[in-house]
Amino acid sequence: MTQPVAAIILAAGQGTRMKSDMHKVLHPIAGRPMLHHLLGSVAKLAPAETVVVVGAGREQIEASLAGSAVKFAVQAEQLGTGHAVQQAEAALAGFDGDVLILYGDVPLVSDGTMARMIARLHAQDAPAAVVLGFRPADPAAYGRIVADADGGITKMVEYKDASAEERTVDLCNSGLMAVRAADLFGLLGRVKNENAAGEYYLPDIVMLAAADSRTSAVIETDAWEVAGVNSRAELAGVEAAWQRQRRGEMMAAGVTLIAPDTVWFAHDTAIGRDVVIEPYVFFGPGVTIAEQAVIHGFSHIEGATIGQGAEVGPYARLRPGAVMGKKSKVGNFVEMKKAVLGPGAKANHLTYLGDADVGAGANIGAGTITCNYDGFFKYRTEIGAGAFIGSNSALVAPVKIGENAIVAAGSVVTKDVAADSLALVRPPQEEKAGWAKRFRAAMMARKAASQS
Amino acid sequence: MTQPVAAIILAAGQGTRMKSDMHKVLHPIAGRPMLHHLLGSVAKLAPAETVVVVGAGREQIEASLAGSAVKFAVQAEQLGTGHAVQQAEAALAGFDGDVLILYGDVPLVSDGTMARMIARLHAQDAPAAVVLGFRPADPAAYGRIVADADGGITKMVEYKDASAEERTVDLCNSGLMAVRAADLFGLLGRVKNENAAGEYYLPDIVMLAAADSRTSAVIETDAWEVAGVNSRAELAGVEAAWQRQRRGEMMAAGVTLIAPDTVWFAHDTAIGRDVVIEPYVFFGPGVTIAEQAVIHGFSHIEGATIGQGAEVGPYARLRPGAVMGKKSKVGNFVEMKKAVLGPGAKANHLTYLGDADVGAGANIGAGTITCNYDGFFKYRTEIGAGAFIGSNSALVAPVKIGENAIVAAGSVVTKDVAADSLALVRPPQEEKAGWAKRFRAAMMARKAASQS
Amino acid sequence: MTQPVAAIILAAGQGTRMKSDMHKVLHPIAGRPMLHHLLGSVAKLAPAETVVVVGAGREQIEASLAGSAVKFAVQAEQLGTGHAVQQAEAALAGFDGDVLILYGDVPLVSDGTMARMIARLHAQDAPAAVVLGFRPADPAAYGRIVADADGGITKMVEYKDASAEERTVDLCNSGLMAVRAADLFGLLGRVKNENAAGEYYLPDIVMLAAADSRTSAVIETDAWEVAGVNSRAELAGVEAAWQRQRRGEMMAAGVTLIAPDTVWFAHDTAIGRDVVIEPYVFFGPGVTIAEQAVIHGFSHIEGATIGQGAEVGPYARLRPGAVMGKKSKVGNFVEMKKAVLGPGAKANHLTYLGDADVGAGANIGAGTITCNYDGFFKYRTEIGAGAFIGSNSALVAPVKIGENAIVAAGSVVTKDVAADSLALVRPPQEEKAGWAKRFRAAMMARKAASQS
Repeated sequence: MTQPVAAIILAAGQGTRMKSDMHKVLHPIAGRPMLHHLLGSVAKLAPAETVVVVGAGREQIEASLAGSAVKFAVQAEQLGTGHAVQQAEAALAGFDGDVLILYGDVPLVSDGTMARMIARLHAQDAPAAVVLGFRPADPAAYGRIVADADGGITKMVEYKDASAEERTVDLCNSGLMAVRAADLFGLLGRVKNENAAGEYYLPDIVMLAAADSRTSAVIETDAWEVAGVNSRAELAGVEAAWQRQRRGEMMAAGVTLIAPDTVWFAHDTAIGRDVVIEPYVFFGPGVTIAEQAVIHGFSHIEGATIGQGAEVGPYARLRPGAVMGKKSKVGNFVEMKKAVLGPGAKANHLTYLGDADVGAGANIGAGTITCNYDGFFKYRTEIGAGAFIGSNSALVAPVKIGENAIVAAGSVVTKDVAADSLALVRPPQEEKAGWAKRFRAAMMARKAASQS
Repeated sequence: MTQPVAAIILAAGQGTRMKSDMHKVLHPIAGRPMLHHLLGSVAKLAPAETVVVVGAGREQIEASLAGSAVKFAVQAEQLGTGHAVQQAEAALAGFDGDVLILYGDVPLVSDGTMARMIARLHAQDAPAAVVLGFRPADPAAYGRIVADADGGITKMVEYKDASAEERTVDLCNSGLMAVRAADLFGLLGRVKNENAAGEYYLPDIVMLAAADSRTSAVIETDAWEVAGVNSRAELAGVEAAWQRQRRGEMMAAGVTLIAPDTVWFAHDTAIGRDVVIEPYVFFGPGVTIAEQAVIHGFSHIEGATIGQGAEVGPYARLRPGAVMGKKSKVGNFVEMKKAVLGPGAKANHLTYLGDADVGAGANIGAGTITCNYDGFFKYRTEIGAGAFIGSNSALVAPVKIGENAIVAAGSVVTKDVAADSLALVRPPQEEKAGWAKRFRAAMMARKAASQS
Repeated sequence: MTQPVAAIILAAGQGTRMKSDMHKVLHPIAGRPMLHHLLGSVAKLAPAETVVVVGAGREQIEASLAGSAVKFAVQAEQLGTGHAVQQAEAALAGFDGDVLILYGDVPLVSDGTMARMIARLHAQDAPAAVVLGFRPADPAAYGRIVADADGGITKMVEYKDASAEERTVDLCNSGLMAVRAADLFGLLGRVKNENAAGEYYLPDIVMLAAADSRTSAVIETDAWEVAGVNSRAELAGVEAAWQRQRRGEMMAAGVTLIAPDTVWFAHDTAIGRDVVIEPYVFFGPGVTIAEQAVIHGFSHIEGATIGQGAEVGPYARLRPGAVMGKKSKVGNFVEMKKAVLGPGAKANHLTYLGDADVGAGANIGAGTITCNYDGFFKYRTEIGAGAFIGSNSALVAPVKIGENAIVAAGSVVTKDVAADSLALVRPPQEEKAGWAKRFRAAMMARKAASQS
């Protein structure tokens, strides 16, 4: 693109149909606020300016973008999309490039589509505006775009004003536009609010440009890409569309998903080739998985780095800071948090590894707990390479288990253990012969008495 | 409704295609027998009488309705739907209002639809019978209803007797009807069984009324509402339809379902606004969740009360009697049963809380087990507010841990602990230097020997 | 079938679109390599010969079939399907029956369909070849079959060579064929590679036979049965088709699947009548479940035998060698491996039973761990009938707990326990009054200091 680009993102409508205390555009898709998805795509165009038009609930949006280069414009009253875009004029003072008009609640538009819109604006016929159209399965009450075969727009019409013939048109208006800054605000200044709602409609600029003998153009995209979110059901629909795309990309890149519809990725999940993922896996943000790893079902993974050929789950819960080395294993009912499992190390059953470093090849027995918290502070546990932690042990941090040391089953370890040592914390086993028989007889008598 | 209403529910067919020892109408939908779903909707009309027509397996049905005001009528032989309804005549002796004819294996009909049927019966044209019709995606072999634009029925025809033209009609007969008691049994008495099956067909009363110059009327409803259950596949289909409705209602009420299709509600699940539910959550009956709670994935929740802002799972198993206070937390691989977790209290990992009371702000360490059962009786564990239970502890009930007390990690607590005390059950840690090295050498020698 | 049958299975294409180091035909469906699914169906026809045509990656295929009676033929260069079939000629020297031509990446074709193909070959009109056709929802670029009403083939045409009229035909060529051995290789020898790709196409034999005045015939099957696998997305599609079929069969046989789409069977899962399966259950290979058992949600079951009326999960992980007796129970967060749970025995919570025998009616307390591994060898734990293992106990194998014995909670048992005895491994409980209060004050001071 030779011209600089600016993006105006409308986010002033709070979305009462969401029935939420959270602003609509901050509801997450794939673990990331939908506004941030859109800003992420916008950022790939390296825009000169990005202006978010806010209204009710603006504090939430501003807080979520604290520290970013985004500018804010305020639309105090809800007077229509044309009015909303006008509020960005001051923030774009002096800007003389192309303007993309986007919506915070239409989050899936790709940077590729945005670039196509800009490119169309600079095609030989130099349209005054480029409108992004789509053909939904059910056009319902969307505004229609009447266009010629080359995408030249004859008419844009709201559904309620459309003739029966116009309603048979299935090309609908997504609301997204690209317009030169030099045109945009002049045209907007001429938009009138002489309609039932008393609102200033952005699409009116197309017909105003036509009155100046300037054509506008439509380009098309898939309906899912311009799906908007006004309710939680639509939020779920957009989440589903995003997941469907990502699952397809993952499989195309060489990841086996036995049951694609059952795997939920976060926006940034990165997975290597020949990784196999069983049904029912949920990824939160921040996960990277190297080649040939196997993720068994019912795993919940967030903020974790999983090495080549590692095996995870079923029922593994990896929390932020979990790092699994090459060919390491985390088995069922095991939780890791801020913990490193060295290459080939194993924690196969019923274990909590929190704030821990486990050396290469170490074996963490079933039921092992790192006691990392005293109610006030957290402490680390260090387990040397080749160490063997017996089952049902509690390691009271801060504590170090030396290389190749053994901790006997059931031990509560409070002092460091030297390399190659055996640590043993265990009273002698006593046996009371016949006690169980007497106990059983007494209890059965009591039970009988209580039931009589 | 000015007239009293009676409901006749046909439930005499046991459903051999279910291949089950359980009577068909007792198979559950959303954790509740399908017959009870229907009776729940019927109850909203405050009927004067409800008669269930039973046959084979009647004991099961009667047992499931023990103590209710429902009457039973027995259809000893399977001689058709008309015959089945006739069996209810004695139970309705003296009743002079409107009669709804329903089916125990058509469980999702709403009270609103039933009320529409009754209302239609009393419309100005006073039809002899009101038939509930539907338009299935695939009309297949359903009986067809030929009707005029106002719903006046011209003809009702079994699929096998329908002409080619009649088979193009997509309005089908659900079998449900509303008829005045004063008409019903008289018309039924005239129904003949001169057909291939030798059965008395209920729909025949429509044509019999027509012979008396009385019209009948059809009203329509959605196909899913009148879906019937004759096989386990159809049972699953009705379950899916019910879940789809409820998920939509939940989202409309302000509950976020990241993946709606993966959340399974029970018939009585009640959830507050701004609750977020991750993928893969199963609700059994008896669950109430207050606002802003978060239910992480892979949670299995039944008979539980979850307070405002509480956090559950992933992998939380809440069983009947689990009560979670405001902002309390139950984390991964934790089970609660008949247990109360006070406000702000936490049980984050690998814990069993059974028959326990945990005070506000208490912290239950990873791997804590309440030993509530001695093989004969169950006992309670009481943990005071602000107490800290060290990881991997076993609390042998009955036992009380005082407020702000601390139990050291790995303790088996058998005696009460006073408030503000530390309880410690732990032998000294021993270390045998070099033992692990010698053990390893011996074992490797043995392994080598066993392989040679 | 009076004639002997041979199967030629083409498996020379490695499948680069899979982006995998594993040969395409070895990727599993329902836990079994897709080639083995196909061979399993072929085996039901008791073929005289089975020849797998291999190419790149042949070592992987040969290894996976080591010890089987299958013969291999090598197609060194990829010169088309006709050429591939020709490579099997030597392996079929002397064979004079019917030949089925199948594809290793078209795994779901049933033995019934194969038998229909053979039977059609021997119908009165004695076709030269029988082609298996299908009508996909979207015929896309499949080769079309122009046929008369009796299935006599007029023309077979690649999509790219088809006329507009021929493209309206929706009967497509699956590629599968049945041909007499006496015809097959003669016809193949006349196939030319005068086409854009320079390949020898198998379907050309149909037109060559026609040139000899011999007709060929098409028979049809459902599209899912001939779905091919060229990518991981298609692999997932075939897996989904297989699962859909099996779920339907399971429900028809009297298994309740509350949410059929959420249950994943392996190729050999066998389940009795009136078994109830909650949502989210994954079966690996080797599972048998007797009547009336209940499988709760989130269970992961492989290589296990589950007795009548047994209850499993939620969150049960049964691994190979798990055997559950009649009415036994395995509850949440419990793992079994090479372990037997006797009739009525229970392991309800947070337990690992590995290499163990548990007698009838025994109760395994929450948090029990069998310590079966010393880092080198594995050992068995034996628990007698009626024994009661207190919660949070570790049983260090090899060890025997006698019948009706009791192990006190929190014990680490290293020596055998006699029948009817109580075993107790527990130091006395100490209490340090006020210690917790002082600790709390000190920590809060430290916390304050660290934050100032």
